[in-house]
Amino acid sequence: MQGPSQYGSLDLHIGMDFSFHLEPDSGVPLYRQIHARLRDLIAAGALRKGERLPPTRELAVKLGLNRSTIASAYALLESDGLIRGHVGRGSFILGAPDSAPADLDWDRLLAPSGSAAPPPVAGPEAISFATSRPSEDLFPMDDFRRSAEEVLASPHAAAILQLGSPAGYGPLRYFLLEEARREGVERPGDDVLITNGCQQALDLLARVLVRPGDAVAIEDPVYPGLRNLFQRAGARLAGVAVGPEGIEPAALERVLAETRPRVVVVTSDFQNPTGATLPPEARAAVLAMTRAAGAVLVENDIYAGLRYAGAPSVPMKRLDDSGHTVLIGSFSKITFPGLRVGWILGPKPLIARLTEAKQLADLHTDQLAQALLLRFAESGRLAAHHGRIVAAGAERLRAVIEACERHLPRGTVFTRPEGGMSLWVRLPEPLDAGDLLARAEREGVAYLPGKYFEVSRRDPGALRLSFADLPPERIRAGVAILGRVFSSELARTRLERYDGAPAIV
Amino acid sequence: MQGPSQYGSLDLHIGMDFSFHLEPDSGVPLYRQIHARLRDLIAAGALRKGERLPPTRELAVKLGLNRSTIASAYALLESDGLIRGHVGRGSFILGAPDSAPADLDWDRLLAPSGSAAPPPVAGPEAISFATSRPSEDLFPMDDFRRSAEEVLASPHAAAILQLGSPAGYGPLRYFLLEEARREGVERPGDDVLITNGCQQALDLLARVLVRPGDAVAIEDPVYPGLRNLFQRAGARLAGVAVGPEGIEPAALERVLAETRPRVVVVTSDFQNPTGATLPPEARAAVLAMTRAAGAVLVENDIYAGLRYAGAPSVPMKRLDDSGHTVLIGSFSKITFPGLRVGWILGPKPLIARLTEAKQLADLHTDQLAQALLLRFAESGRLAAHHGRIVAAGAERLRAVIEACERHLPRGTVFTRPEGGMSLWVRLPEPLDAGDLLARAEREGVAYLPGKYFEVSRRDPGALRLSFADLPPERIRAGVAILGRVFSSELARTRLERYDGAPAIV
Repeated sequence: MQGPSQYGSLDLHIGMDFSFHLEPDSGVPLYRQIHARLRDLIAAGALRKGERLPPTRELAVKLGLNRSTIASAYALLESDGLIRGHVGRGSFILGAPDSAPADLDWDRLLAPSGSAAPPPVAGPEAISFATSRPSEDLFPMDDFRRSAEEVLASPHAAAILQLGSPAGYGPLRYFLLEEARREGVERPGDDVLITNGCQQALDLLARVLVRPGDAVAIEDPVYPGLRNLFQRAGARLAGVAVGPEGIEPAALERVLAETRPRVVVVTSDFQNPTGATLPPEARAAVLAMTRAAGAVLVENDIYAGLRYAGAPSVPMKRLDDSGHTVLIGSFSKITFPGLRVGWILGPKPLIARLTEAKQLADLHTDQLAQALLLRFAESGRLAAHHGRIVAAGAERLRAVIEACERHLPRGTVFTRPEGGMSLWVRLPEPLDAGDLLARAEREGVAYLPGKYFEVSRRDPGALRLSFADLPPERIRAGVAILGRVFSSELARTRLERYDGAPAIV
Repeated sequence: MQGPSQYGSLDLHIGMDFSFHLEPDSGVPLYRQIHARLRDLIAAGALRKGERLPPTRELAVKLGLNRSTIASAYALLESDGLIRGHVGRGSFILGAPDSAPADLDWDRLLAPSGSAAPPPVAGPEAISFATSRPSEDLFPMDDFRRSAEEVLASPHAAAILQLGSPAGYGPLRYFLLEEARREGVERPGDDVLITNGCQQALDLLARVLVRPGDAVAIEDPVYPGLRNLFQRAGARLAGVAVGPEGIEPAALERVLAETRPRVVVVTSDFQNPTGATLPPEARAAVLAMTRAAGAVLVENDIYAGLRYAGAPSVPMKRLDDSGHTVLIGSFSKITFPGLRVGWILGPKPLIARLTEAKQLADLHTDQLAQALLLRFAESGRLAAHHGRIVAAGAERLRAVIEACERHLPRGTVFTRPEGGMSLWVRLPEPLDAGDLLARAEREGVAYLPGKYFEVSRRDPGALRLSFADLPPERIRAGVAILGRVFSSELARTRLERYDGAPAIV
C-alpha cells in the first residue's frame, strides 16, 4: 500500500491509538522504524504502564510485515527497558516518562554516559605522575615563534587561513608520505590522512571499521581514551593481556579464535600505560595471526620517537606486505600537544573512507597548526628539539627507575622501558593502589591507579607513573614520598596479620 | 550456565559447526552478539550459500533464550543482505565472501559509504559560485600576524601549546559566555563547549542526542554536510520545506506530528543554501512548536554576523526561557575558516555530555587557534575586520542581485537576502540546473545545483550562487555568462516545443 507522502512511504493505521508511518526505502530498517514509533508512543503516554503490546503475530499481520520484524522491534524496546516480555503472556509496558515538562529535562533526555570516573586531580603544588604529556619547560619557544613568523610571512599565509582539504594540508601530507617512504613503512597504494592527533585517528577508524556488536581486540591494560571510544562505538571489547614485553601473542591467539575481532589495536613501542615494547619475534607473530584472522591491525606508533636507549624498533607496518596494517602517528608526544595534529597511513580505499568520515566530523584539521608543524620539521628545528627531549627523557627515565628501586617496598615490580612516558608499577599484596591514592595525594603526590586502565583484568596493585613531564629532582622527591606511603601501609597490614583475632569475651 | 571465562560469559555449543560465546553482562544485547557470531560464521564459510539457518524456535531452545532474541538477530542478518527468510520454509544463507585473500580486500571490508557525489570542481581560471566561504583577499593578515606575535610573546604561550581542556581554552570560553550574557542569549545554567567549527558542533550533537532510528527534522534544502552527518548517525531525516522566509512553520508542524523528531535543526539567519532568514513571528512559532513536541531545537547561528542591511534578528535561543534551545556559533564565517573554532551554548547537563563526547572525538580543539582568535577579538581587530567584511559583503550582495535581475532569463526567481553568502535561484521550467552545469563550466562558471542540497523535495531548476568569495566585477561577469547559457537553452527548448512531433511516414 503506497501512501501519498513525498517519501514514497507507507501509512498504516491499526486502530485508534496506533498509526505507523513507515518508509521502506529510507535506508532505516523497518524494525527500527517500528521500534522508534512505539518508543515515541510510550514516551507520549499513548501506551501506558501495564498495558500489553499486541502479540507480534497480530501486529505483523496488520502491518503486512514479517513477524521477525516485529519481534526485532520488541527486542529493542526490551533492551531500552521500556517493555518486558513474559513467556506465553505477551509484552507489557514497563513505564513511561511523565508528560513533557515546561523545562526540558536534560538528565532524562540524555542516555547514561557510561564513561569511567575522571582521573584524580592533584593540587597545583603536587608532584603529579598522573599525566602522560611532554614537559612544557622543554618547549623551544623561540624556535616555535620563528616558525610562526616564517609561515605567516610566506605568500601562502592567507591560503593557510582559508578553508582547507579534509585530507589535510597538502604539503604536510607530501612530507609525511615522503618520510614514510624513507622509513620503509609506506606500501605502494598507501595514502595519508591528517587527523586531530591520535585520538581522532582512533575515533575515525572506529567510525569506519566498527559496527555495533563487532569485536575489537585491544590491549589490557590500555589508555582509557582508546577503550572508551571503541565502547561508545558499540564494539565488544576483547582485552589482550599486556606483559612486560607488550601484548602476549598467546593471549592474542585466544582472543582471535574466541571473538573473531574485526580490528586489533596494538601499541608497538612504549605502550600507554605499561611502557612495554613488543619484541621483534612478537611483532611478526602478531602480524601473522591478525592477517590469518582477516582482521585489520591498527598500529599505534605515537611513542616510537621517544626512544632514549636501545635500537629503534621496526614497525609492523613495515613488515606487512599484505595491506592489513594501518599506522597511526602524531606530533603531540614529540612536540606540542596543544596543537592537535596526527595522521593515519594506510591503504588508499581505507584512507578515502576515513577522509569522508573526517569531513563529516569537522571538515578538516586546523590548517595553521599543520603548516606550523611542517615548518618546524622542515627547518630542522624538530630534529634539534627531538635531540633535547631524548636527552632529557633519558635522564628522567633513569631517575624514575633508580627512585623506584630505592624507595618502593620490597616485592614491588615495575617495567623498565627504554623510552616513552610511563612506568607500570605493581605493589606487593595486599596493597591496593586505588585505595592508597588519597593518602598519596594528601602527601602531595598523584598517580593513576591501574583500575583506570582496565579492560577486563583486575590488577589492584598496579599504578602508572608518568615521568616525562617532571624534572629528575621532582621525580626523586615524588617517588620517595610514594615509597613512604606504600611501605607504611604494608607494615600496617603485616602487623595486623600477626595480631591475630581478638579473644571473644 | 556460567562459563569459566574472565568475562562471566556463556559458552554454548549447539552442534558441530556452531558454538556461541555470549556475554550477557557486556552491555551488548544478546541478539547483537548472536548476529555478529552468525555473520562471522557466514564470512568464514562455516555457513555456506543456500544452507538453512536453524528455525528461530529451535535455536532459541538450544541457547535457552527468547525466540524474539533469535528473530532479532536474523532480522539484522537479513538487513545485512546475508540471509533471506521465506515464509514457512525458514531463513537461507544468500552468499558469503570467498576465503580470506592474502591481501586485505578493503573495498569488500568497508560498508558502502552512502555519501553523496562530491561537488563539481571548477578549473582555477573559473568564476566559482560553488563555495560558501569568506574571501581570503579580505583577510587582515597584518592584524593576524600581530595577534600571533602577542599570543606567542605572552607568558601563557607555552601553556597554550601544552595539552588543554576538552571543554576548550578557558579564557575563550569565558569571553564567549560574557558575550552571550551581553546579547541576552545565555540562560542561567548555560555553559559553552568549544568545537572544531560548526561541523563538529553538529556532529557532537548527533552523537549525544541521536540514536539510530530517531527522527531528526532538518531544513529542505540544506547544507549537505549537515544532512549527511545525521544520516550517518542513523537518523530518519524529516525535511522541512524552506521558503523565501526560512522554514515554513506549517511544514514543521506536520513533520513534528508525523515523525516526532528528537531534534529540530534550524538556521535562523541567511540559511545555507537559500540565504533565507526566519521572520520574528515564525521564530516564536518554531520555538513554541518544538517545545510543545518535547524536542531539542538546535539553532545554527553561524551566518548571523554577516548581516549587510536591515535590523539584527533576535536568536530563538534568546526567546527560549525553557532550556530547549542550543545555539551553535563559529568564527569561521567572519574570520579565518582554516582555523577550526566554533562553539555550542546550551544547558549545562547537555554541555557536560557533549564535552565527554568531544574528549573521545579528539581530546580538545587546537589551543593556539583558540588563543589567536580570542586575541584577535579582544584586541578590537575582529570588530574592525567585521566592519570591512560587512561593507564588502553589502557590495557583493548588491552586485549579485543586480546581475541576476539583469542577466537571468525571464521567469527565474531568486531569494533576496540581507546578508550571508548565498542566493537560491530557481530557473524557469523546463531548465534543469544539474544538466546545465557542465555547459556553464565549459563557459568558465561553476555553481552547485539544487540536487546537492535536497533532503526529500526535488527541485531540478534550483541552484546555489555563493557570492561572498568573489569581487563584484567577477560576480557580474559570472552571472552574465550564466544568463547566456540558461537563456540559450531556454530558447532551444521552446523552439523544440513549437517544432511539434515529426510526421510518421
